[in-house]
Amino acid sequence: MLARIERPSNALRPFSLVPNIAPNAMGSVLVEYGNTKIICAVTLEEKTPHWMKKQGCTHNGWITAEYALLPYATLERKPRECVSGKRDSRSVEIQRFIGRSMRAITHFHALEGHTLWIDCDVLQADGGTRTASVSGAYVAAQLAIHHLLREGKLKTNPFMDSVGAVSVGICDGQALLDLNYAEDSAAEVDLNVVMNGKGHFIEIQGTAEKTPFSNDQLNTLLDLARVGIEQIQNYQEQFLKNYLPT
Amino acid sequence: MLARIERPSNALRPFSLVPNIAPNAMGSVLVEYGNTKIICAVTLEEKTPHWMKKQGCTHNGWITAEYALLPYATLERKPRECVSGKRDSRSVEIQRFIGRSMRAITHFHALEGHTLWIDCDVLQADGGTRTASVSGAYVAAQLAIHHLLREGKLKTNPFMDSVGAVSVGICDGQALLDLNYAEDSAAEVDLNVVMNGKGHFIEIQGTAEKTPFSNDQLNTLLDLARVGIEQIQNYQEQFLKNYLPT
Amino acid sequence: MLARIERPSNALRPFSLVPNIAPNAMGSVLVEYGNTKIICAVTLEEKTPHWMKKQGCTHNGWITAEYALLPYATLERKPRECVSGKRDSRSVEIQRFIGRSMRAITHFHALEGHTLWIDCDVLQADGGTRTASVSGAYVAAQLAIHHLLREGKLKTNPFMDSVGAVSVGICDGQALLDLNYAEDSAAEVDLNVVMNGKGHFIEIQGTAEKTPFSNDQLNTLLDLARVGIEQIQNYQEQFLKNYLPT
Amino acid sequence: MLARIERPSNALRPFSLVPNIAPNAMGSVLVEYGNTKIICAVTLEEKTPHWMKKQGCTHNGWITAEYALLPYATLERKPRECVSGKRDSRSVEIQRFIGRSMRAITHFHALEGHTLWIDCDVLQADGGTRTASVSGAYVAAQLAIHHLLREGKLKTNPFMDSVGAVSVGICDGQALLDLNYAEDSAAEVDLNVVMNGKGHFIEIQGTAEKTPFSNDQLNTLLDLARVGIEQIQNYQEQFLKNYLPT
Amino acid sequence: MLARIERPSNALRPFSLVPNIAPNAMGSVLVEYGNTKIICAVTLEEKTPHWMKKQGCTHNGWITAEYALLPYATLERKPRECVSGKRDSRSVEIQRFIGRSMRAITHFHALEGHTLWIDCDVLQADGGTRTASVSGAYVAAQLAIHHLLREGKLKTNPFMDSVGAVSVGICDGQALLDLNYAEDSAAEVDLNVVMNGKGHFIEIQGTAEKTPFSNDQLNTLLDLARVGIEQIQNYQEQFLKNYLPT
Amino acid sequence: MLARIERPSNALRPFSLVPNIAPNAMGSVLVEYGNTKIICAVTLEEKTPHWMKKQGCTHNGWITAEYALLPYATLERKPRECVSGKRDSRSVEIQRFIGRSMRAITHFHALEGHTLWIDCDVLQADGGTRTASVSGAYVAAQLAIHHLLREGKLKTNPFMDSVGAVSVGICDGQALLDLNYAEDSAAEVDLNVVMNGKGHFIEIQGTAEKTPFSNDQLNTLLDLARVGIEQIQNYQEQFLKNYLPT
Repeated sequence: MLARIERPSNALRPFSLVPNIAPNAMGSVLVEYGNTKIICAVTLEEKTPHWMKKQGCTHNGWITAEYALLPYATLERKPRECVSGKRDSRSVEIQRFIGRSMRAITHFHALEGHTLWIDCDVLQADGGTRTASVSGAYVAAQLAIHHLLREGKLKTNPFMDSVGAVSVGICDGQALLDLNYAEDSAAEVDLNVVMNGKGHFIEIQGTAEKTPFSNDQLNTLLDLARVGIEQIQNYQEQFLKNYLPT
Repeated sequence: MLARIERPSNALRPFSLVPNIAPNAMGSVLVEYGNTKIICAVTLEEKTPHWMKKQGCTHNGWITAEYALLPYATLERKPRECVSGKRDSRSVEIQRFIGRSMRAITHFHALEGHTLWIDCDVLQADGGTRTASVSGAYVAAQLAIHHLLREGKLKTNPFMDSVGAVSVGICDGQALLDLNYAEDSAAEVDLNVVMNGKGHFIEIQGTAEKTPFSNDQLNTLLDLARVGIEQIQNYQEQFLKNYLPT
Repeated sequence: MLARIERPSNALRPFSLVPNIAPNAMGSVLVEYGNTKIICAVTLEEKTPHWMKKQGCTHNGWITAEYALLPYATLERKPRECVSGKRDSRSVEIQRFIGRSMRAITHFHALEGHTLWIDCDVLQADGGTRTASVSGAYVAAQLAIHHLLREGKLKTNPFMDSVGAVSVGICDGQALLDLNYAEDSAAEVDLNVVMNGKGHFIEIQGTAEKTPFSNDQLNTLLDLARVGIEQIQNYQEQFLKNYLPT
Repeated sequence: MLARIERPSNALRPFSLVPNIAPNAMGSVLVEYGNTKIICAVTLEEKTPHWMKKQGCTHNGWITAEYALLPYATLERKPRECVSGKRDSRSVEIQRFIGRSMRAITHFHALEGHTLWIDCDVLQADGGTRTASVSGAYVAAQLAIHHLLREGKLKTNPFMDSVGAVSVGICDGQALLDLNYAEDSAAEVDLNVVMNGKGHFIEIQGTAEKTPFSNDQLNTLLDLARVGIEQIQNYQEQFLKNYLPT
Repeated sequence: MLARIERPSNALRPFSLVPNIAPNAMGSVLVEYGNTKIICAVTLEEKTPHWMKKQGCTHNGWITAEYALLPYATLERKPRECVSGKRDSRSVEIQRFIGRSMRAITHFHALEGHTLWIDCDVLQADGGTRTASVSGAYVAAQLAIHHLLREGKLKTNPFMDSVGAVSVGICDGQALLDLNYAEDSAAEVDLNVVMNGKGHFIEIQGTAEKTPFSNDQLNTLLDLARVGIEQIQNYQEQFLKNYLPT
Repeated sequence: MLARIERPSNALRPFSLVPNIAPNAMGSVLVEYGNTKIICAVTLEEKTPHWMKKQGCTHNGWITAEYALLPYATLERKPRECVSGKRDSRSVEIQRFIGRSMRAITHFHALEGHTLWIDCDVLQADGGTRTASVSGAYVAAQLAIHHLLREGKLKTNPFMDSVGAVSVGICDGQALLDLNYAEDSAAEVDLNVVMNGKGHFIEIQGTAEKTPFSNDQLNTLLDLARVGIEQIQNYQEQFLKNYLPT
């Protein structure tokens, strides 16, 4: 009964990208996976993290992500972390996920001496915020990089590939693509998948708090994720064609 | 030479309000004063602050504000407060300003047992963020209240009046309305003015870090602020007519 | 009925300054506005803030303030901020007010390479702590500067003018000078005014949480503040004549 | 050349469990995966988390984990989080992993009104700390539960299954089981796998910061993980037979 | 050469007590041991600590102390703990010392349901701040208790005895009473001694970071401390006779 | 009745030292005083504290300690400080005690440019954790120093003497050696004594929260402590003979 009726089990929710949502950033988009809306904004800092310098990594740069829910993103207001004084542990986990996904396609030498910051702020949360963040972050980052290349601040594009992500899960025994919050809450298994443009895995995070899953179920879910990610990558590519100068 | 050329000294920057920017909030707008863009979102919590209960104020409610710069709102990325672990003191001052301005028009008894949260997150900062926040907060709060009245969660509208705000200042000896960041940085005197719908003052904050100012200069600035706030109140009224059911 | 009986509406509370309350500071006073008692102590640090260095401001110095209530300053004990782990937002707002007021009379070049710290610790709070802090801070700072000039640590006095401050407000429709806590709590309008020695405004902070106020009321209050500040500046001048070497 | 020489690619490192390492806990073990040594200790608290009560979940209990590196666990001393004042984000991610893995086999109703705390403190870190923590946590938790059943504090065993975990990865193109720190640092792909006693997946975390991986590679790694986890589950079962009363 | 010249080795520095330094407290003094000046203020809170309630101690009260250096108490300004965000570990140790000393003479039942707060804020630090705090705290607490007895908030005086404290040390082989900062810094051995009115020890803290000390040296130091504490207790007694109603 | 029955009043609890409990440290032991079990681990950092550099102490090194209870060390689980966000004040006091005790036998010049970290983590707490920490810390530190001398990282042994510690107390009027938790809780007087190898005092901490004590009682306790410390020093010496190369 939770199996959705408004679209087929292998269909993405409406996907959209709005450019330049935060004009002071070097690149930004508002990414939407259905009702999930996330501001992805990319800025460049002219230094590298302390630990990199300490390790003597002077010829490389770094890319890192921060993720936060705006307090009104959820139906019940969630206190700001700066007020409660505690980092939300789920947010910490998610921003590590976003950072790893972006680093997997990055050639660090091209960022020499710089840190690229990926900020993902959730305006409305309705499931899939970590995968929507990755897909939006990639597009915002490409906008930023092209801006920096035009300005001469970078010489080569550090991204060696593209990256897209989607969640899949099993609800009432049925594999579903791109779960919204209600579906995610009811899912027996929840899998977040990140792929590069060649269809190889960058990150797989599968969790079965309710019902452990078999190899076969895993493969079904991964196939479904691949279907979704390919569509997302088409959207991303088309968007970048429209908004980047040729 | 810093005196602006693109519009008269007594003209507001382009003002706009976009409704429903954060749909999970009970009321929200994106308010723009020129390049300054702020998400104002209002939510209701079904309890009152600890200190109110301690004082035995059981028949009233409360209204409070939080203000933050998103890290990419400024030209140079500003670390999140939750990461640096310190509340930014300017943000603290501003959110107290917003909270007081909203409380000045509020009948607390109509909020009995509830707290109305006003969140103002700056998407792009270009001067006047505290006054834009107040003007946007009022509109978002009215949207929220009408939503709550329709749902039956509140019985009467707690707002006894409207509220609008603008900054004025003196640059190179000339009084200017609605300063952007460059003008504000160059201003000898900087005055933030909040008025209710009857044209009475709710809050006046004038600072002269560079050149102390006379009574006459103060009166010139207050007159200029009045001109701007009246226009803003017209915009607010028109917007609410369009978006609130009659 | 709250209108005071023990002194006229345009009279200051008893004002006093006790020198050298904290002898390890470079200059210090205990300032009293009636029952409000504040330790103002000034120290010099031989470095400038991090952000100044980052902006390349190498030829200037800085002046900054910190304000805190001692836990026994109020009738009900107030936990220390270091114990609760949170900066009190009212204190943050006040210390920004004190810092701006002092900076408005300061020539930063004369402090080259140094930071002048103004610490204001409230021993007893009975209204007007922010304005008493400003008036006391100026005197303590002049004591400190003369000490530093004698020692040869500074070459010229950075203060270009004097500064005095007082609060005014409207209670039961009547304008009152220098409100104590009971009067302040009952006030419809509360205005803090800071002036330099020429009678020009440095800072005006007016708040009407209860009853918005008109232009006329504002002008009445500003005139009353001027009466009080002139007396305070006379006291300050006389005190400095007594305690500074000629 | 990093491919290991001291044992076959499909062999676990020496695995051991030492019971009762922290006798004040209700159950505890020292788990070793080669040089990785972790104290797993389980305690019962007679209350449930605040959010559970708020949601009205009165008939259930909860199980949660905390994970920390002791400062001398790594070759270079790592400052304590309580001293640096920041939660380490990697530790946050890992303790969520441990908690989810334990919850996947738990019947919450059997813990009604209680929280079971799983503490994992790393005494020596040499790769695989999150998977070793899960395998040790399960055993320590069973010891604790049997203790609580004997004492009558619980009536039924909340664990519906067993849980074991291991890491696998690809180094120089070769799939390796149970990576140590040097192997993990050199790995192109790193996969953490948690299974229940029936061989179903509870958690899969695969990351390819260096080289994205194919479906085939994923399946090879999952098969290898299964080989390791089955051995670990045999060790766990044998250990519990020895140390639990029949 | 560090052996002092301005007074005999067995002489106290000038000791003084100024009453009512913080009039909003229930009892307060400014205590001076030479140049060491400390505000001791005592307030009553109408609740007991959380841990007491948790242990079911409902018939008792509690007494606790807080100690802090005001930022201008030392020759070099010391940042406030609330700004640095870290409790100073020396202050933590000292406030535990003060709290234990006061508790040793307290009958907790007489404070039933209340917490007596002892705040010690150092206005000028010149050695012996922890012992001066204890001696001042006792007097401020007696003033507070008599105030509370008169008001009827307490029925019996919880203090069963008096308490006085002094530091002693060995400098250049010579035993000295009541060390100032220069002497304390040069001391081979540093001993803080707290005694009740019967001359019995409440607390002894001896530290030999430079030269471990013998039993004989310990006894010499304890005898010297006794000489000083007896004088301090005479001062305290005389002061309380003057300021407490008979 | 609390006077112990299982061993004479002047007998130590079973004492043991297990070497190399944390192999990544440069030296480590598990020290046991009866049921009190503490991991003592020593690491070297190739820098000195900030304050040392600021004071221009370039030719010396430093030695410092950290002490923490593992959350399962006590019968009731104690939340981690990093989670509660507050340093436990008792732990702060104890780690200062350990640090001072180690510094009293250290020649800082031999550590030039280095900081020796002493970490003491309590695995099981049953009284005497601060004195057991000191005795264990000394042994772990000697293991570390010999390791560093062999490696050539240090040229001379900085320790000029040995150090041992024990607690003594008075329960029901009887002096007892090496109190466990039950005895300590019931003690009228509690004394922690640290001695060097020549039998001189390094630290004495005596507290009488219940019954102030006389000179005679102090001397009885100090004699009893000497008996215990001598035995501990024999154990330490024997252990180091076995585990250090000759």
